[in-house]
Amino acid sequence: MGEVIATYRLETRDADLHKRAESIAVGLTVGTWTDLPAVKQERMRERLGRVVGVEAGPPDGRGVRTATIRIGYPSMNFRPSIPEILTTVFGKLSLDGVIRLADLTWTPDVEAAFPGPKFGIDGIRELLGVGDRPLVMSIFKSCMGLSTAEFAAAFAEQAAGGVDLVKDDEIFFADDEAPWEERIARCREVIEDRLAKTGQRVLYAANLSGPVDELADKAAAGIRAGATAFLLNVLPYGYGVLERLAADPRITVPLIAHPAFSGALFASPATGVAPAVALGKLMRLAGADAVLFPSPYGSVVMDREDALAVADALRSESSLRRAWPGPAAGVHPGIVPRLWKDFGRDQILNAGGGIHGHPGGIAAGGRAMRQAVEWAMQGRSLREGGLPEELRLAVEKWGVME
Amino acid sequence: MGEVIATYRLETRDADLHKRAESIAVGLTVGTWTDLPAVKQERMRERLGRVVGVEAGPPDGRGVRTATIRIGYPSMNFRPSIPEILTTVFGKLSLDGVIRLADLTWTPDVEAAFPGPKFGIDGIRELLGVGDRPLVMSIFKSCMGLSTAEFAAAFAEQAAGGVDLVKDDEIFFADDEAPWEERIARCREVIEDRLAKTGQRVLYAANLSGPVDELADKAAAGIRAGATAFLLNVLPYGYGVLERLAADPRITVPLIAHPAFSGALFASPATGVAPAVALGKLMRLAGADAVLFPSPYGSVVMDREDALAVADALRSESSLRRAWPGPAAGVHPGIVPRLWKDFGRDQILNAGGGIHGHPGGIAAGGRAMRQAVEWAMQGRSLREGGLPEELRLAVEKWGVME
Repeated sequence: MGEVIATYRLETRDADLHKRAESIAVGLTVGTWTDLPAVKQERMRERLGRVVGVEAGPPDGRGVRTATIRIGYPSMNFRPSIPEILTTVFGKLSLDGVIRLADLTWTPDVEAAFPGPKFGIDGIRELLGVGDRPLVMSIFKSCMGLSTAEFAAAFAEQAAGGVDLVKDDEIFFADDEAPWEERIARCREVIEDRLAKTGQRVLYAANLSGPVDELADKAAAGIRAGATAFLLNVLPYGYGVLERLAADPRITVPLIAHPAFSGALFASPATGVAPAVALGKLMRLAGADAVLFPSPYGSVVMDREDALAVADALRSESSLRRAWPGPAAGVHPGIVPRLWKDFGRDQILNAGGGIHGHPGGIAAGGRAMRQAVEWAMQGRSLREGGLPEELRLAVEKWGVME
Repeated sequence: MGEVIATYRLETRDADLHKRAESIAVGLTVGTWTDLPAVKQERMRERLGRVVGVEAGPPDGRGVRTATIRIGYPSMNFRPSIPEILTTVFGKLSLDGVIRLADLTWTPDVEAAFPGPKFGIDGIRELLGVGDRPLVMSIFKSCMGLSTAEFAAAFAEQAAGGVDLVKDDEIFFADDEAPWEERIARCREVIEDRLAKTGQRVLYAANLSGPVDELADKAAAGIRAGATAFLLNVLPYGYGVLERLAADPRITVPLIAHPAFSGALFASPATGVAPAVALGKLMRLAGADAVLFPSPYGSVVMDREDALAVADALRSESSLRRAWPGPAAGVHPGIVPRLWKDFGRDQILNAGGGIHGHPGGIAAGGRAMRQAVEWAMQGRSLREGGLPEELRLAVEKWGVME
């Protein structure tokens, strides 16, 4: 029987945690159990949640214990839909005191019912023709107010640095001056031009936004105009939107998940949803090919353990394609050695200011990032002499964290 | 110029909070400012965020201050869409330390671009022909596994108690045995039957679920089958889904918002999104006609101040229709006096176990709730003698909280 197993971490004064666990298992599935007549129990047994485990630490001075409760929910109680799973396992329960959805696992039948990433790590490597190194993504500094021509020029400047992907600013919505299909088409021309002239392949991740029920059509129109990837603010739109985009056969390009708003779910460690679930497991299940998250070392940081857990959830063995972790925020060439050690070959390094702020200009900034990757892969220290010019300038400006 | 103003509460070691505020105002709008050439500044000025206010308390022993920062975001930077507003005002920022989106206000032009509730308080009163008292909503104990006939019978039993609305369990998804249009049609028959025989009007709020891009069509099919209201798990699906349902001219019945998953946003007081924003302002803006939330007195509780703030956000003066606050979870007749004092005439009292567990049965449970409302409106104590029979039994079982 298929099952989704939720692990909760909670702070509680309950003396009888098994009773608490039972009440969750019953309350969030069949509603009541002991009161049911035997014949009804027979009919409902396969829908009944089960207590998988209960553990608790010792009470603190106030009599509060930190406990872990694991509940298995029969997958027949919901359809393969993240909104339905979240409502079941952390709908009412999210409101019930100090409690966190710490982990979520599922049986293979559940996973098989979801699309998962269409491209993932191998698929994007194939699109780019890059087999053996971390990818570098450049972030538009600000897209707002650029005309289509300015936009395409800014894209070309970033691409010229040898980055693999360039993404829109995630807050780029009002694009009257560089409209969706028009800017996608112009960036595609730049892409084709670079491919013809230099053999470099680069993807442009356009920020997909709009009314939820029009997003798939808008994506399809974008693809007709030449789109090569999309960026999506998954949490503000809902996992259900990503699921549908990933399942849509018209959407034949990678989907890159931005972590906007996800801090609202996990900034406090005792409540909400763990990052490895919110940005890791659920994103991959819903079909993200890559997921951005704050690196442990930049301007906006995520705890290193959380960041590693997100990456692990995206890349661990599973029937779904592996997705890219994308450490971001305040990334510059001097941080690359750390990110290489932490996240290895299969990561997308995201840099905004760390490319745009390069003393030699934007293209030089991209080259410095690529050089830092090469250097890290060769196990060479950025403190050695003989750095390539662009990398040397970057290290002079931003320093090194090894 | 239109604007959305966000109020953030944060814990910070920043010595210069004005600088921090400026960096938010610039970073989440035009990206950079002082580096821009004058001609570009001219072009971008109307898109630039502004610091509305900065306040900070004294540092604690660790040098951390609690601060309030208010930033105004030009509404021309996004379309009238809650996902776009949330991405802008609390996308990246939600990931930046201990910070909470404490309030959100907007200029009239922003509000005017949203549908808001189609019915709201006055509209639902009109549908029910109930002008002068709080409404009572009964919650299906468990919908799972009921056949259509059993479902309709359970609906009829609840309606017989004189409640105004009956809602599906919010975790009711796998409805193969009581399929959407079939159970809606059967409940509609019960509704018409009661209207003809007793003059009582009652609404059935069916739990709308499914793939996000099919929800509007499913709702429309439900309406053709006789639907009188829908329940929606707004947070798991996303505010954008509610927005679109509310704006859809085919959807001619009230939309009731369930708070499932919302605790993940506000269970910790220092992070996430304040309940008055998450369940109040944004729900009303997106078009919820009624919003359920944990009452301050039941089995799952919300702080009384938060609950009052949610109700206030739903009902305060605005160009949008006023929406119903719906205190829920562990509500029984003995709690009604408190809820009456807190939330007054324009509330929907939700009871599940407090109706189903009545010693005299489900219809008696509904009557006891209605009697408790009458009693409270007359300013009479439940501790007086002379209670009607059903109310007396309820009070004997569950006690009184006055």
